Amino acid sequence: MKKWKRSSRLVHMTQELMQNPHRLLTLSSFAERYQAAKSSISEDLAIIQEVCQEEGLGELETVSGAAGGARFLPGVDPATARDQIDQLCGRLADPARILPGGYLYLSDLLGDSALVRDLGRIFASVFARSGADAVVTVETKGIPLAYAAAAHLGVPVAIVRKHNRITEGSVVTINTVSGSSKRLGSLSLSRRSLQEGARVLIIDDFMKAGGTIRGMIHLLHEFHADVVGVGVMTDSLVEERLVEDYISLTTVAEVDVKEKKIRVVPGNFNMEQQGGILHGKDSDR
Amino acid sequence: MKKWKRSSRLVHMTQELMQNPHRLLTLSSFAERYQAAKSSISEDLAIIQEVCQEEGLGELETVSGAAGGARFLPGVDPATARDQIDQLCGRLADPARILPGGYLYLSDLLGDSALVRDLGRIFASVFARSGADAVVTVETKGIPLAYAAAAHLGVPVAIVRKHNRITEGSVVTINTVSGSSKRLGSLSLSRRSLQEGARVLIIDDFMKAGGTIRGMIHLLHEFHADVVGVGVMTDSLVEERLVEDYISLTTVAEVDVKEKKIRVVPGNFNMEQQGGILHGKDSDR
Repeated sequence: MKKWKRSSRLVHMTQELMQNPHRLLTLSSFAERYQAAKSSISEDLAIIQEVCQEEGLGELETVSGAAGGARFLPGVDPATARDQIDQLCGRLADPARILPGGYLYLSDLLGDSALVRDLGRIFASVFARSGADAVVTVETKGIPLAYAAAAHLGVPVAIVRKHNRITEGSVVTINTVSGSSKRLGSLSLSRRSLQEGARVLIIDDFMKAGGTIRGMIHLLHEFHADVVGVGVMTDSLVEERLVEDYISLTTVAEVDVKEKKIRVVPGNFNMEQQGGILHGKDSDR
Repeated sequence: MKKWKRSSRLVHMTQELMQNPHRLLTLSSFAERYQAAKSSISEDLAIIQEVCQEEGLGELETVSGAAGGARFLPGVDPATARDQIDQLCGRLADPARILPGGYLYLSDLLGDSALVRDLGRIFASVFARSGADAVVTVETKGIPLAYAAAAHLGVPVAIVRKHNRITEGSVVTINTVSGSSKRLGSLSLSRRSLQEGARVLIIDDFMKAGGTIRGMIHLLHEFHADVVGVGVMTDSLVEERLVEDYISLTTVAEVDVKEKKIRVVPGNFNMEQQGGILHGKDSDR
């Protein structure tokens, strides 16, 4: 087995930690893999930790003791997050997005895999300490954001369906009333897609009154799940909100169909940072 | 501006290269960022390149000249890919997946964000040299795989819809006939979600006869798109295949509903490796 130089170890360890977010990689496994003393591995981890902290990449959490090691929690520094959100506001405010009925075209943004990854990382940073062990979203447009957040949190995704499908096996279904348009609908979640008692982070692209998200929360009660957070890319100003406790990255403040103008501002997301991890509004719940 | 040590530079450069797959990061930008000579940066890149190659993480392609730099093409070494595919075969063969009508429950696999990321990386490795500038999939189950591949290729995703939605704006729609069940359907793609003349990689979760993928290829013709590859997680054995030129990671060889048995084998994907990048069956097209 080859003996690794520190420089090569640093490259490979950085890669391993980033590829396995929120998972504890042990000193022993590193020491064996690189044929190096645990003390050398600890020094390597200290270098990686320093870079993560100084550059706002997230936190490298070290665990001491016999089974000790390190776990990487991806984060974003507040300046970068603000910059990404400002850019998103600019892109959302493009009047060409206005569709008949005042709907907004968002598919280009949700198709931009680099943007989606960055937003997923912001969500993962905000909810890094939420203890979420699954991300739940509703088909279709929220799916990429949910996966991006889940990939950075190292947890699985379950997708709530608006149309029950045979390929979902046994499902739990609830009926819903949309908060803004009062339309009836249903939401289904496959029994097997979420463990009973899971701690769930809900991620979606867009929220108006919040009827769909309230429906998802009710549906998740059927799984005895604990909703530890709700994050949306964009919300819009409404008179009555059915969900109060959530984080939005941006807010569509006004859509003037006649004048072809959209006003978009940063969401209710007040960034603070502790130990390389962003904190949103309700991060301490 | 702080001067970086080599060890810190290596950690940060690894992270930057991994976060920006298939994008050229220039020597000049690295030299400025780290306040280091270009010759030092070149040495750093050589170290990263060596680790990527020896560990089968992909290829670090270096570009020389005044505007030179490096670009990371994520890859997988054949042994790891084979291992991941064998594990997937094992999970697919679980008889508890059999649903009424012989359908298979796949949502748990497609909800496993780590598995999805690994499969996306295999697709990205196989199609690293395809020149794809977009990934296209069809709603709903293929979406996570498409994003995982796209994220590793550094390209956007466009989602073909089975139900036309108002939030898609102006769309192109074609009518289809499913290859296996002869059902009529339609496929729509938003005009704005794909550039005319794009080079497209099609990714989906499951393929039987291939009617949906053939439909997508026809739809993409309307965008004057060039389909540079087709990849599916699983195909099944059928008498007549409507799409010939594709890569499958696994093949469901037999589903015996009565005996509750599923037989799954590795797909038509014959791995070779050149320069840290896997090559599938038709990678040279």
